[in-house]
Amino acid sequence: MVDVMHGIGVLVSEVGPRDGLQSIASVMPTEAKKAWIKAEHEAGVREIEVGSFVPPKLLPQMADTADIVRYARTIPGLQVAALVPNLKGAEAAIAAGAHKITLPLSVSETHSLKNLRKTHEQVYEEIANIVALIKGLPADLRPHFEGSLSTAFGCTIEGVVPEAKVVQAAERMVALGVDEVGLADTTGYANPAQVMSVIRAIWSAVGRDKLTGIHVHNTRGLGLANVLAALEIGLTTFDSSLGGLGGCPFAPGASGNIVTEDLVFMLDAMGLKTGIDLEKLLKVRGIVTAAVPDAMYGFTPDAGLPKDYVQGGVGWGVGNTKLAAE
Amino acid sequence: MVDVMHGIGVLVSEVGPRDGLQSIASVMPTEAKKAWIKAEHEAGVREIEVGSFVPPKLLPQMADTADIVRYARTIPGLQVAALVPNLKGAEAAIAAGAHKITLPLSVSETHSLKNLRKTHEQVYEEIANIVALIKGLPADLRPHFEGSLSTAFGCTIEGVVPEAKVVQAAERMVALGVDEVGLADTTGYANPAQVMSVIRAIWSAVGRDKLTGIHVHNTRGLGLANVLAALEIGLTTFDSSLGGLGGCPFAPGASGNIVTEDLVFMLDAMGLKTGIDLEKLLKVRGIVTAAVPDAMYGFTPDAGLPKDYVQGGVGWGVGNTKLAAE
Repeated sequence: MVDVMHGIGVLVSEVGPRDGLQSIASVMPTEAKKAWIKAEHEAGVREIEVGSFVPPKLLPQMADTADIVRYARTIPGLQVAALVPNLKGAEAAIAAGAHKITLPLSVSETHSLKNLRKTHEQVYEEIANIVALIKGLPADLRPHFEGSLSTAFGCTIEGVVPEAKVVQAAERMVALGVDEVGLADTTGYANPAQVMSVIRAIWSAVGRDKLTGIHVHNTRGLGLANVLAALEIGLTTFDSSLGGLGGCPFAPGASGNIVTEDLVFMLDAMGLKTGIDLEKLLKVRGIVTAAVPDAMYGFTPDAGLPKDYVQGGVGWGVGNTKLAAE
Repeated sequence: MVDVMHGIGVLVSEVGPRDGLQSIASVMPTEAKKAWIKAEHEAGVREIEVGSFVPPKLLPQMADTADIVRYARTIPGLQVAALVPNLKGAEAAIAAGAHKITLPLSVSETHSLKNLRKTHEQVYEEIANIVALIKGLPADLRPHFEGSLSTAFGCTIEGVVPEAKVVQAAERMVALGVDEVGLADTTGYANPAQVMSVIRAIWSAVGRDKLTGIHVHNTRGLGLANVLAALEIGLTTFDSSLGGLGGCPFAPGASGNIVTEDLVFMLDAMGLKTGIDLEKLLKVRGIVTAAVPDAMYGFTPDAGLPKDYVQGGVGWGVGNTKLAAE
C-alpha cells in the first residue's frame, strides 16, 4: 500500500529534451537545451534523455543530439540517456558517450512501420546488431541498452494491443540480449488496472529485474494514476517531461507526457525520495518557455506548492507524529 | 489490487451544478441547468448535487436551487443532492425534496470562519439542529444527511491540517447523528498516501459504513491518482464535475474539481461499473459550454476515446481472454 512506502527511493527520468522537443515544431537552440539540462540536474534530476539519434531530415529538432550528449556527459553524476532507432544511431550515441540507449519497438506493427519504418523482424535485427556492437566494446564503454515496448497499452491505428503480444516482444528482446525492457504508453490509452496487469505479465515472462520503469502519457488525464499503479506494484523509474512538453508526433491525438513537476510533487508529498528540489525544478521552466513559448502546462506550477509544504519529508499529512501533533 | 476489481460497482456523483457553477462568475440560466441535469442523468449519472441553499446575495449562481431540486426530483431514479450551510438551508432543501443534504465543516477553523462564517462549535450546533429537524420528519421524507470534512488534507490559510483534527471532527459529527461523513480535498493538497492514511484513520474512529465517498480536486494534477488510492482501499463514491468546472471560491488557487469525463473513462477502462455511457456523457458538455463558455477542460474530451474502445467491458487490455486472444 502506498501509504507505507515513504522513504523509498524512486528515479524520475526527464525525457523532455527528447520526447518533448521532438514533438513540437520549433527547434530549441543548442545552448538553451544545455542550459535546461544543466539546471534540471542542479535541481536534483539524476537521469535525462537528452535527445534522439535520428536523421536530421526527419527530426531537425534533434540534429544537435551528439553535441548535447557530449555536453551532458561533462555534468558529474548525471545519467545521460538517448533514443536510437537503429544500429547507426546506437553507434553515434556510443561515440558521443551516452550512458544509456533506448531503442523503441512498437508492439503495434502498423505503428512500427509508421514510426520506425520497420517491420518487427527488422527491428529485432537492429537490436541483435546493437547487442553485438556493445559486446565488442570494452566493459567501461558499454551503455545500458533498453528495448522499449511502445504502444504497449493500445495503438491509435490498430486499437487494442493484446497483452500476449507485449509479452512476446519483451521475451524476444530479452532473448536477443537487451539489458532491460521499457514499457511505454505512447498513445495515452493505459489505465491503472491494465498497467498492473501488463507489468505482472512481463515480470512473469522475463523476470522482475528486466522491467523497472514506465513511460506514461497524460493524454486522457490518467498519467499520475497510472504511475501510482506502477509504483504500487514495484516499478521505481518514471519518465516525465518538464511542463508536460511533448508526445508522439506519429500517434495523432496522443500528445502529452506527464508533467515532471506534478509527478515530483506527488512522489515527494507521499514521502518517497526523488532527490529533487521542487522549488528549483519549478524555476527550470523559465529556461524552456523562453526558448519554446506556449508549449508547456502543469497543475502544480499553476497552483504552487501547498502552504507550509515541507519538501523531502515523511509525507504530507500522512499520519506522522509531526503533523498529527498539535 | 485494482487490476482485479473489475465488475465492482462505483457511484460517480456529479457536483458540477453546485461546486462547478458556484465558483464561476457567470450565472447559468435555470433552463440550462435543468437541461444539463436531465442530459447527464440520461447518460447514466445516478447522483447529482444540483445546487446550494445559500443566500442569493452571497452566491447569485445558486438562487434558483429550490426550483432546480424540485425539477430534478421529477427525474425517475435520480438521487438529488444539495449543499446546505445551516439549518435554514436544510429546511429549504427538505421542503424542495432533496434526497441528500450535505453540510460542510471546514476542519481548518480559519477556513470555516471565511467560508461558512462560523466557528466549529457554531457548525456543530447547526448539525445538531438539522439532525433534530430530520428526526421530526416522517420516515419517507427524511433526507440522507452527510457532514462533509472540508479542507481535510490541508488549508490554503492554515497550511497543514493534522489528521487527528480530521478524525475528531468526524467523531463529533457522527456523535451528533449525521448519517455519514464526507471527505473533501477542498484545496487540492491531497496525495495518494495521505488519502489512504486519512480514510483509514476515520474508519478506525467511526466505522467503515460512516465514510464511503471522497471529493477531490485536481489542483495539482493528482486528482485521479487520489481517486485510485481511495478506490483501492474501498471507497465507492467519487465526486467530480463535468469539464472540471469549479473549485472553491474561498480557497484562492484551489480551483479545479476532477473531470467527470476523465474519471468515468478511468473507472470504465478498469472494468468497474459506473452505469454511465461515456459517449453520451461527452455530448453533455455542449449544453454547459453553450451557457457558460470557456469554463471547462478535460483530457478525455480533447483526446477522444481510444480506437475500438468497448464501454462497460471487463477492462481495457486487462489480460482478459477477448483481448489476449488473437
